[in-house]
Formats: sequence, structure tokens, C-alpha cells
Amino acid sequence: MKTMFKGLYVVAQTPFADDGGLDLPSIDTLTDFYLRHGAAGLTVLGVAGEAAKLSMEEALQVVERFVDRARGAPVIAGVSHSSVAQLAALTEQVMAAGATGVMIAPPGGLRTEEEVLGYFAAVFERIGDVPTVLQDFPFSTGVWMSVPTMARLVECHPQIQAIKEEDIPSAAKITRLRAALGRPVAILTGNNGVYLPQELQRGIEGPMSGFSHPEMLSGVHRLFTEGKVQEAHDLFDLYLPLLNFENQSQWGVAVRKEILKRRGAIASAAMRTPGPRLTAQDLQDIDRLLARLQQALAQRS
Amino acid sequence: MKTMFKGLYVVAQTPFADDGGLDLPSIDTLTDFYLRHGAAGLTVLGVAGEAAKLSMEEALQVVERFVDRARGAPVIAGVSHSSVAQLAALTEQVMAAGATGVMIAPPGGLRTEEEVLGYFAAVFERIGDVPTVLQDFPFSTGVWMSVPTMARLVECHPQIQAIKEEDIPSAAKITRLRAALGRPVAILTGNNGVYLPQELQRGIEGPMSGFSHPEMLSGVHRLFTEGKVQEAHDLFDLYLPLLNFENQSQWGVAVRKEILKRRGAIASAAMRTPGPRLTAQDLQDIDRLLARLQQALAQRS
Amino acid sequence: MKTMFKGLYVVAQTPFADDGGLDLPSIDTLTDFYLRHGAAGLTVLGVAGEAAKLSMEEALQVVERFVDRARGAPVIAGVSHSSVAQLAALTEQVMAAGATGVMIAPPGGLRTEEEVLGYFAAVFERIGDVPTVLQDFPFSTGVWMSVPTMARLVECHPQIQAIKEEDIPSAAKITRLRAALGRPVAILTGNNGVYLPQELQRGIEGPMSGFSHPEMLSGVHRLFTEGKVQEAHDLFDLYLPLLNFENQSQWGVAVRKEILKRRGAIASAAMRTPGPRLTAQDLQDIDRLLARLQQALAQRS
Amino acid sequence: MKTMFKGLYVVAQTPFADDGGLDLPSIDTLTDFYLRHGAAGLTVLGVAGEAAKLSMEEALQVVERFVDRARGAPVIAGVSHSSVAQLAALTEQVMAAGATGVMIAPPGGLRTEEEVLGYFAAVFERIGDVPTVLQDFPFSTGVWMSVPTMARLVECHPQIQAIKEEDIPSAAKITRLRAALGRPVAILTGNNGVYLPQELQRGIEGPMSGFSHPEMLSGVHRLFTEGKVQEAHDLFDLYLPLLNFENQSQWGVAVRKEILKRRGAIASAAMRTPGPRLTAQDLQDIDRLLARLQQALAQRS
Repeated sequence: MKTMFKGLYVVAQTPFADDGGLDLPSIDTLTDFYLRHGAAGLTVLGVAGEAAKLSMEEALQVVERFVDRARGAPVIAGVSHSSVAQLAALTEQVMAAGATGVMIAPPGGLRTEEEVLGYFAAVFERIGDVPTVLQDFPFSTGVWMSVPTMARLVECHPQIQAIKEEDIPSAAKITRLRAALGRPVAILTGNNGVYLPQELQRGIEGPMSGFSHPEMLSGVHRLFTEGKVQEAHDLFDLYLPLLNFENQSQWGVAVRKEILKRRGAIASAAMRTPGPRLTAQDLQDIDRLLARLQQALAQRS
Repeated sequence: MKTMFKGLYVVAQTPFADDGGLDLPSIDTLTDFYLRHGAAGLTVLGVAGEAAKLSMEEALQVVERFVDRARGAPVIAGVSHSSVAQLAALTEQVMAAGATGVMIAPPGGLRTEEEVLGYFAAVFERIGDVPTVLQDFPFSTGVWMSVPTMARLVECHPQIQAIKEEDIPSAAKITRLRAALGRPVAILTGNNGVYLPQELQRGIEGPMSGFSHPEMLSGVHRLFTEGKVQEAHDLFDLYLPLLNFENQSQWGVAVRKEILKRRGAIASAAMRTPGPRLTAQDLQDIDRLLARLQQALAQRS
Repeated sequence: MKTMFKGLYVVAQTPFADDGGLDLPSIDTLTDFYLRHGAAGLTVLGVAGEAAKLSMEEALQVVERFVDRARGAPVIAGVSHSSVAQLAALTEQVMAAGATGVMIAPPGGLRTEEEVLGYFAAVFERIGDVPTVLQDFPFSTGVWMSVPTMARLVECHPQIQAIKEEDIPSAAKITRLRAALGRPVAILTGNNGVYLPQELQRGIEGPMSGFSHPEMLSGVHRLFTEGKVQEAHDLFDLYLPLLNFENQSQWGVAVRKEILKRRGAIASAAMRTPGPRLTAQDLQDIDRLLARLQQALAQRS
Repeated sequence: MKTMFKGLYVVAQTPFADDGGLDLPSIDTLTDFYLRHGAAGLTVLGVAGEAAKLSMEEALQVVERFVDRARGAPVIAGVSHSSVAQLAALTEQVMAAGATGVMIAPPGGLRTEEEVLGYFAAVFERIGDVPTVLQDFPFSTGVWMSVPTMARLVECHPQIQAIKEEDIPSAAKITRLRAALGRPVAILTGNNGVYLPQELQRGIEGPMSGFSHPEMLSGVHRLFTEGKVQEAHDLFDLYLPLLNFENQSQWGVAVRKEILKRRGAIASAAMRTPGPRLTAQDLQDIDRLLARLQQALAQRS
């Protein structure tokens, strides 16, 4: 199977200034940071990218800036929306801005799988021939898609070139999907990467998640590709205490931005309102975990 | 108490052509129809107005056209959005387009009442001094606001000039709200108007709902205002079989549009995809109810 | 088609004393009242019967008393439970107590239709050969079943002898179910009966709902059976203002019990805690609606 | 502060035989296993204990057996139920069977915090003077309780002697709770223990969660108590890859039972229907993680 979806598609943060305004220059430093740490592509305007807090104009500015700086690396833009018309309008605009494809999750409120199929039929009729990542993230959307329904979507809509699988447990569903899909479709995984070794074991193309240390995500993928399974686990385990700590919903995004700021990837750790704020004690927790990570990395080399 | 919120604020449909495009000329005929049948004001871009299926540009076109044709009658625009930034952007634009005020419901996903208070604090800080209708529609939003929380919102935010109350049962909540609110705020009611007589009995300012026969809603309000309680009930009961039939969620909107088309208020009954479609048997149900209504009206005069 | 599910299966209230204890003697008077007003059967332990507030022992006492007093009229007992083991235990006990069959709705938490099919497979394997009413009430359970899934359930499980259909809109789903079901299965409808004329038009076997005036429900069914469609609508419309008023969720049950008490069917209108309480103003609303109903009935004869 | 809630209150599995029947002898071996690995107390009939799949009789048998074998160690029994009557009946019976106290989470369906307060008022009026753990697990129950509401519950109901806090992020909420609570109440934490070091840092009394290796949970607590923070983290990190893998909802319970069986704590890994089943590939994932854990433990000593 030949696909562009291979390796780490890092879920990108959206940088804001302390006053809540977009910080476009930080998109440049953040993009450089991601690519330097092994990202094969970028996923922008995701939930962790605070997409729902952007106006349409801001969303486009963000996509354009990431695309410009990525210098040819693929950029996937999240365009999920309860309104098919708004989804289609945003899709047209992000593709015009240079995005490589879009990512779509079914909107909350779809109920039977008949409705899921009907929704995507309407979507794909409207957006036409755009490379699409189908996102399966039921704990966030409230929409559960069974494997037969997902296989049906892939069968009906050639636009679907990849699936982002983040149901729980992910591993078993990946195996069932591989068996049920009638044509080659890349499978990438999310859930902040916490189940990455088991997912790679099932043959996924790579992680699609965010982390303050993307070098771990790309490194674990590379080691697995090279057949070095134990080394991949070793690397993963080294970062797991921090990864697990970042895996706390939107609050975890605040932690991630704080660390990205400390690493020089973005100028401010601010999240746009409404969003969580870290306390002094939270920062001490981060200090401790980072110090322990440095020590473990030092011991290892 | 002196308020502009007095009488029927009809929840306006958005007219589409058969191909799904906006039908702007039908906004003119529909506005005339509403005003001719007793509307004191219009509420546009509501759930029944299929607002979620419009792009931002279309939403503005709709508001402008209604405002232009309403010739001075107040127009309230629904601007609810999970993104405070997008809500603020839309609010600015609809106010620039001539809207009299906005209507805001808390977005799904708010959980504790602390979060509800925090959300509205962020909203009102951003939108500034805009007349606002607070919509309490928990069965649609999934957000339940208790009377003390609503009183707190009214206390903190002078922008709130009216409440659209559509919790169930509405009557008891209206009475509790009146007792708890620290300043005069109009109360209007929704739920398609099916509990209107009891709500008027509790002293609301008027209905804010849609119906294929808005003359009933305005007429019942007028009769109550004149102290003619039994006559108000008589008028309400006459239309209740049809009103009850239209009270079937989005499918009921399809019924309403079909009847509005038959009455010449709009050119097409089309709803935008995804949306319900009426079958031949559904149309027969409508025929029967309309025939019975004509007969009842004839017997009455 | 030959079925015992024909006519009104009235959804029975559970009578409590003012102190919250079970009022078993009122079950006798209530059963007599229901049968005298045209009930063909009884449905006990439903949501409107406050089943969730009963202990297992109380639930059995209630079933036994209704069965004893019904003198041969069929009694269906609601046994829905998230635990298959508890559902099976309750089913065994209510059948031993003389119930004619059980009613089961899928528990909240089932997500894909694969899970719905798996749940019912487990249920029917456990309970064996018990006549079952499958309840489709998505707005209460949060579980949406599409027509193909329901047809599949009927195909796999011969125990299903009837469907209680209360999705919205009900009429269109009834028509689709009739076309999809591979064998004769009775369809009864709920939603407090507010869409009964249209549902009878689609060929259902009868209403399965509660109302303070069950003579309307049985009467409308009878008139439809006799081909007197307009007379059926006339009777329905006469009671609709009160029916609509009772159609307010658990609060509407409090109204219904108040009226059943006034009609001598039960000794106390009490609902068990936690439950709504009627205010003095609520009682005035009831007075007004009952007076208007009496007047309308008087004018008619 | 003096409290019995100190140390690990392990969330106990319910052992089943391969045919789905209760396996009471395995309760003995499991209890011994827990106590031998540092449990100060047991929490039975929890979600992870498959409580919802037990009949009332079975639930009591389970409690009795655990109590008998625990030889004086405290046993807390989960009694959450949407029916206050059933909750009260179960509470009475488990206390008669020797339980030390009960754990109660608000049932799904409570909406405003007014309703939460009303629900617990009804509960505590019914159950009387029973030591209670208030469970705050919003991602499972769908009921979000703010810190002021929880403080109010603690203020009104002296029965509440401990809180099981498993909101996300837990650490910040623990700090806010400590500041808001007007009297000493133990705080224990769940979420499978994945945030345990940070929670202990905030001064909780101990973990209340399940794990195939409870010696880690009790050990981390002990080390923290002794002021050995880095050693506590070291121990936690050693087990984290496995802990994280078990942290996959009900599927993670299947993993845990498989490992408990391998360790001789229970005779069968069976979960009762409906429940997940492990595949051959899942078992290989477990093999790999256990082998890596053994290796890490060996290197350490």
C-alpha cells in the first residue's frame, strides 16, 4: 500500500498571545519545531488546536501560515461542523489556502448509523474530490460508528484516504477495520498517543496526535518501522509519565503549551477563553516531571 | 414594566429554493405574511430557521433581508455558537446589518452552573452592550439552568432584556423566575406555543415561536391582554390539532413550511439537506387537518 | 393478523399514599376505572408508573395486585434494566406473578446498533420464551434504533410480539416498519397519545399510553376501527387541550394523578420522592381545563 | 485529621466462572491477594466490579463473602441507583451483611445542581446514619458537580466521610475541595490510579482504584507517606506502561482479570455478558507488557 499518510502527523497547537489574539509568528517557530522533531505532516484546526474558538477568518489565517511554513510537508485541516454548508465553505477555503486534505468527524446529534451514512453522503456530494481523513473519536463526538458502518463509508466515498481511529480500545478496532475495509486506507491514531506501541503492532501508518515532545512519537514510529520493537517500547516508556500527564483533556493542552513555550516552540502558553489556567502547584508538577525526564534521558545516554 | 418585548415575536423560517439555495424574495413575502398576521417582531436564525445549515455569509444575507422588509419592526437574530469568537463576530455583523438584538442559548458541553456563569461572562465581555434574549431550552441544548443561576445571569449582565423560557413545565418556572429576578426582564415562551394559555396566565409578555398560522399566536396574546381568557382558550383550542401536529421537532418544521407555501407565504417548502422529507401519506394528514380547521373556522363565524 | 395486542393498553399509574408508601387498595379501584373506560389491557411498571422508584419487592406486589384485579385482561410489565441479570430475574418473577408479557427498552449507554443487537441477543437468551413488547422511545432512552435494526431484532427474536413505537415523527416510522417487518407484529404507540389519529391512520393496533380520561383513547380507537374517521378526530380534539397539558414529562404525571384522584380512581395524587409537586396556580390551571372540558362535553350531547 | 480512610481501598473485581455464574471461592483468594499486596480496605460492587450485571441476591452474596474473608478490614459497597427506594433497600442489606459503609454517585439524569442537592437530601433522609463515600465521576455518570455544590453536600450531610474524586484534572479539584470543605473529609482518587503521584502531592488519603498489581498502588502511597517522593515516582513509573494499558474502560477490566488469573488471584478471567472478550493478539500485548515489567523489576533489584 502506497500512501502519503505515513509517519507522524502531529496535531498542531494554535499559538495565541497573552491577550488572546492570534500569534502568527509563533506558527512559524512551532512548524519548524515540529518538522525538526520528526513530523511527516501537520494536522491543524483540531480540537486540541482550539479550532472551535477561532472565527472563520482566523481559521484561514492559521491554515495559510502553517502551509507556507511547512514548505511542502502535507497539512490536513479539521473542518468538522454540524452545518454541511459551513463545512463545505470551510473546506473550499482551506483547500484554496493550500491544505493537502481535510479531517471530518461526524457531528454530535447523529443518532442511528443510517443518519451517519446520510450525513456523509451529503458532505461528500458537497465537497467533491477532496482527500479526507475520517475521524472516529466517539468519546468526544458522542457518535459511535461500528466497523461495518465505517467500511460502508469507505466503500461509498473514495475521498476517504485515511481513518483517524481513537475509539477505546483502539487496537482491536484497528484489526477489525483492516479485515473489513475493501480497499487500502491508511489508519492513524490519536488519544494523545497513549496506546501507540500496541497500535503500531497492529500495523497502523503512524500517530496523529499532539505531544510536547513529538520526537518520541516520531521516534517510536521509526523504531517500529525498523523492526526494533523493544527499543520502541523503551523510548515510549521513557516519556510515558509526561505523556500520561498531558492526557487530561483540554487541561492537558494547557500543560502541553506550557512545555512548548519552555522549549522555545511558541512565545506564549496562553489558551483562548474559555479555557483552563494552570496554578502554581500545577507548574510544580510540570517541573518535577520534566526534571525526571531529563534525568532519565541523561542516564540512558 | 416597559419593554419592546411585547406580543408575538414569531420565529421565522428561512426560505430555500427547491435546489437548496437561499430564496431571498420569499423572505419578503414571508415577512409581509408574519406582520399581516399580528407579529410584533421577528426572531431569525433560530433552530427552526435551519440556522445551522447556513454559511456565515448566507446568515447575514438572511438577517439583512428580514430587517429591510420588516420596516422598523424589531428583528432578533440567533447567534448561539460554541465558539465565543464566532458568536462575537456574528453578533457584530448582525447588529451592523440592523438587527435589534441577539438571542443566545448556552452551548452543549457546559456542565456545572459555574461553567454556565463563566461562559456568559466571557460572552458578554466580548459582545459589549447588545440587547440580548437569554434562551432556556434545555431539551435542545442539553444544558439545564436552575432559576437561581438564571437570576444570577440577569443580575450580572444588564444586556439581558428578555428570557425565552422553554423548559418543561414552563408555567411553574415562569412563576419562580418572576419571583427571583431582581429587575424587570421580559419573558417570552417557545415550545412551539403548545402551552401558551397557561404561560400567558403567568404573566409572560408574549410567545416567541413559529406556527403556520401565526394569527392564532398573536390573537391569543391579544385576547389575554384584553382579559378575555375564555375567548383566548377558544381560539387556541381551535388551532390546537394543527399546532400539536407541527410540534414534532424538525419534521414539524417541514409540515409548517408546506403549509406556509400553501398559504402563499413562501415559494417552496424545501428544507435544506440534511432534513426531513414529507411523504404522500404525510401530505394527506396535512390535508385532513387543514380541512378540519377550515370547517371549524366556518362553523365559528 | 391475529394478535392479543388490539385496543387500548393503558399505561397504569402506581398509586402511593400521602406518606409515600404503596397504596394497594387504590390499585383495585384504578384497575376497575381503566377497564370501565375501555382498556383492553394494562401496562404496568412503566416510566409514567414511577417504576424506577420501587424496590424489587414493591414492583412484584404491584404486578400481582394489578393481575388479580384485572380478571383475565392482559397485563404487560415493564422490566427494562441495564443489568441483563436483573432484567431476567424481574422477568421471571413478574411472569410467575401472572403477567402476560414484558416490555423492554434498550438501556442508555448502548451506542452502535451492533451493540443494540448484542444486548437483545443476551436478553432473549436469558429470559427464554416470554412474550415481549419492544419499546422504541429514543428521546427517553437515548438509544436510537433505525428501522432496519428493529426489523432485524424482530427477525431474530420470535418473542417480540409487539412494538411500542414512540419515536418522533411516529407516523412515518410506523409506515416504514410495516414495510420492513418480515412477520406480523403489533404496533402500539405512546407519546401520551398526542399523535394518535395519525398513528391509527397508519394502521396501528392501538394506543399504549396513559391519560386521565382513558375513555378518549379507547373511544378514538373504536371509532377508527369502525371507519368513523371524522368522529374519531372530533372526539380526540375535544380532549386535546387536556391531553396536551398532561404531556409534560414527569410533571404531567402529577397532573394526571391529580385528575385521577378527583375522578375517584385513586385515593391520593401523591408521587414518590423525588418527584414534582403541583402549586396552587397549577391546580387552577387544571380547574380551568376541566371546566372547559365539561362544558364542551355538555354542548356536544 | 483522623479517619479510617487511609491507604489503598482497592476496587475489587467480581469473579465469575467461565459459564457466567458467580465464583464465590475466588472471592476468598482474591481478598487474600488484595490484603497481601497492601490493601487497607476493599471497595466492592463498583463499576469495574461489574455490579450492574448482578441481581440483588448475587450482590448481597458478594458483599457477604468479601466481608467474611476480609477479617476486619473495612469493606465499602457501591449502592448507586436511580431509584432512591432501591438504593435504600440495598444499603440496608449490605450494612446488615457487614459492610463498613456505602459509596454513592449521583445517577445520570440529574441536571441542575439544585436537582443534585435534592436527590442527595432524599437519599440521606432514607438511608439514615450510614458512613458514605460520595463519588464524583462525571465522565461516567454524566453529572457534573462543582466544588461549591460538593461542599454544600458535605455541609448538609454528616454521613459523607469521604469523597472519591475522579474528575479530570483531579489534582486541581482536590486542592479546591480541600479549601472549600468545612470539615475534615477524606479524599480518595480513582481513574485507575493513572494520576496518583500528583494526587498524593495534593494530600489525598489514598487511592481507590483497581489494578492487577495493587502492590504498586499501596507502595506508592506508603513511599509518599514516608516523604520519599522520588522513590514513589520511580515505583509508579515502573508499572505505568501496564497501568496505562489497563486504563481502557471495561475492556481494561478484561485485561486486569486476565492478569489476576495468571497471578493466581482468581480462577477464571471471565466477564459476564455483555462484556468484552480478549483476542489472541490482545493476549500477546499482555505477554509483552508483563515480560517487560518482569525485566524492569529484575534490573531494579
